[in-house]
Amino acid sequence: MRYDIGMTSELITPVKTFLHDLQNRICQILEQEDGLAKFAEETWQHHSGGGGISRVIENGAVIEKGGVNFSHVEGCELPKAATDKRPELANASFQALGVSLVIHPQNPYVPTAHLNVRCIIVEKAGKPPIWWFGGGFDMTPYYGFEEDCVHWHQMAKAACAPFGEDIYPKFKKWCDQYFYLKHRDEPRGIGGLFFDDLNEWDFDQCFAFMQNVGNHFIKAYQPIVARRKNHAYGGLERDFQLYRRGRYVEFNLLYDRGTHFGLQSGGRTESILMSLPPQVTWRYNWQPERGTREAELYETFLVAREWV
Amino acid sequence: MRYDIGMTSELITPVKTFLHDLQNRICQILEQEDGLAKFAEETWQHHSGGGGISRVIENGAVIEKGGVNFSHVEGCELPKAATDKRPELANASFQALGVSLVIHPQNPYVPTAHLNVRCIIVEKAGKPPIWWFGGGFDMTPYYGFEEDCVHWHQMAKAACAPFGEDIYPKFKKWCDQYFYLKHRDEPRGIGGLFFDDLNEWDFDQCFAFMQNVGNHFIKAYQPIVARRKNHAYGGLERDFQLYRRGRYVEFNLLYDRGTHFGLQSGGRTESILMSLPPQVTWRYNWQPERGTREAELYETFLVAREWV
Repeated sequence: MRYDIGMTSELITPVKTFLHDLQNRICQILEQEDGLAKFAEETWQHHSGGGGISRVIENGAVIEKGGVNFSHVEGCELPKAATDKRPELANASFQALGVSLVIHPQNPYVPTAHLNVRCIIVEKAGKPPIWWFGGGFDMTPYYGFEEDCVHWHQMAKAACAPFGEDIYPKFKKWCDQYFYLKHRDEPRGIGGLFFDDLNEWDFDQCFAFMQNVGNHFIKAYQPIVARRKNHAYGGLERDFQLYRRGRYVEFNLLYDRGTHFGLQSGGRTESILMSLPPQVTWRYNWQPERGTREAELYETFLVAREWV
Repeated sequence: MRYDIGMTSELITPVKTFLHDLQNRICQILEQEDGLAKFAEETWQHHSGGGGISRVIENGAVIEKGGVNFSHVEGCELPKAATDKRPELANASFQALGVSLVIHPQNPYVPTAHLNVRCIIVEKAGKPPIWWFGGGFDMTPYYGFEEDCVHWHQMAKAACAPFGEDIYPKFKKWCDQYFYLKHRDEPRGIGGLFFDDLNEWDFDQCFAFMQNVGNHFIKAYQPIVARRKNHAYGGLERDFQLYRRGRYVEFNLLYDRGTHFGLQSGGRTESILMSLPPQVTWRYNWQPERGTREAELYETFLVAREWV
């Protein structure tokens, strides 16, 4: 049997179709929730092949800055962020397809949300393509609401349910471990799902799982945005939000594999760093006062918990 | 000959004395220039030995946020950021002494400045201590002034002059290469000096070089602060400053060896991340308009140039 580009594109085409559709559906729903701003689209080409469609929404009624990016990048050499765990794939050509999203809302009572779904296919001449899926979604509240966290994790659990009872606990735990700021000894948020290197099922089933994750993100986030977007807030909450956004920046630049993969593979910097918040503050050695809602975030929400 | 802790402390004591004094002198001069705010001091202990003295100034008339940190950390295992280039020193115990400084001024016409001087001594039982020095200073203007850049580099050159004619060009070039944002294809600022792994001279001469770098930083920065601190500015300049500060964050979290060394060796997070600006913005895909002073920064100053 010969393996050629035809085989890879047979795998890729349905993934690409799904990802385009996912990007469209998410943007439509977010525009609907925002009610004011619209996504602006830019397409870009990658230097070694492929490219992407970046959609950015700014200064909305609900969303201060958000990006929903589709990319399909081809390269001759997998970046270090991917070959650290797979040294045998150094110098292999690859295709990476994904949708990546970060939403930074105006209102501190609306949590920041992140979704990523991706598929990577590596081709070595004369060998069958090697592929894996990765992604997940996680939520970063500024003010915690028990019911929001429960709903978020119910949707995460529902996304996993058809694939086995052990999947949600496994990928929920992985999410808690991954979105963790070691230098602060602090979780980034209340978690959700994280998976990578997924190829233990056949391609179709792994792809079906990725689709379920993408589709459940919408069901997870939209009701929370709708519920909190009109919550009254003042300067104190806003200041805390800007301060907490600093943690998001620290995580993405210090630890995030996706950010490093993107920058190392020569991806479009402005699209990759779309994840960074529009306004951020760092206050030296600041701690919330005991008994405040700000302290409650750390004590009650930024701890590894079983939400469902 | 036996090598013991006595030998190491013979090396360390004068370095420590100099660094304490340097911290004091710099803080005194910066308080003088500020005229309003004073440095607040905190001492801290490192979990595996040693500790530091953090001095922070906030909301001054001139300095929005600045930190001048002394640290002397002992550890049983050199962090990855140091052993990448020296695999033979993995698992060796070490002492790291340094002064590290970042100043973020209020006024966009006053540049951000960075200084670091450090000495690392590694001990392996029964062997002579291995040591090296590193550091440098570099400047990041928001609005460029030719005379400031020339003065800055004249002081950098003067610091190097007694050690040979080739030293300034070598460490100036290293600085340009080090403080470079690969993902933006953009220098962080107008450079200065950067050196690391310095042990080609004897200990005393390397130490003398480090002292000269520390002392010349003061002569380099103070006149620029004095000259620019009363320059009138408005919202446009302030916005550009906050936007450009994002590059500082990107560099320090994505690339800076000192930041990674500190965080990996379990240093005090709040002291290490003192380098991050107090307020920062990220604007998606923003470009300065042609012919503006903001565009001039990129075209005329953020390029590798011979300033003296």
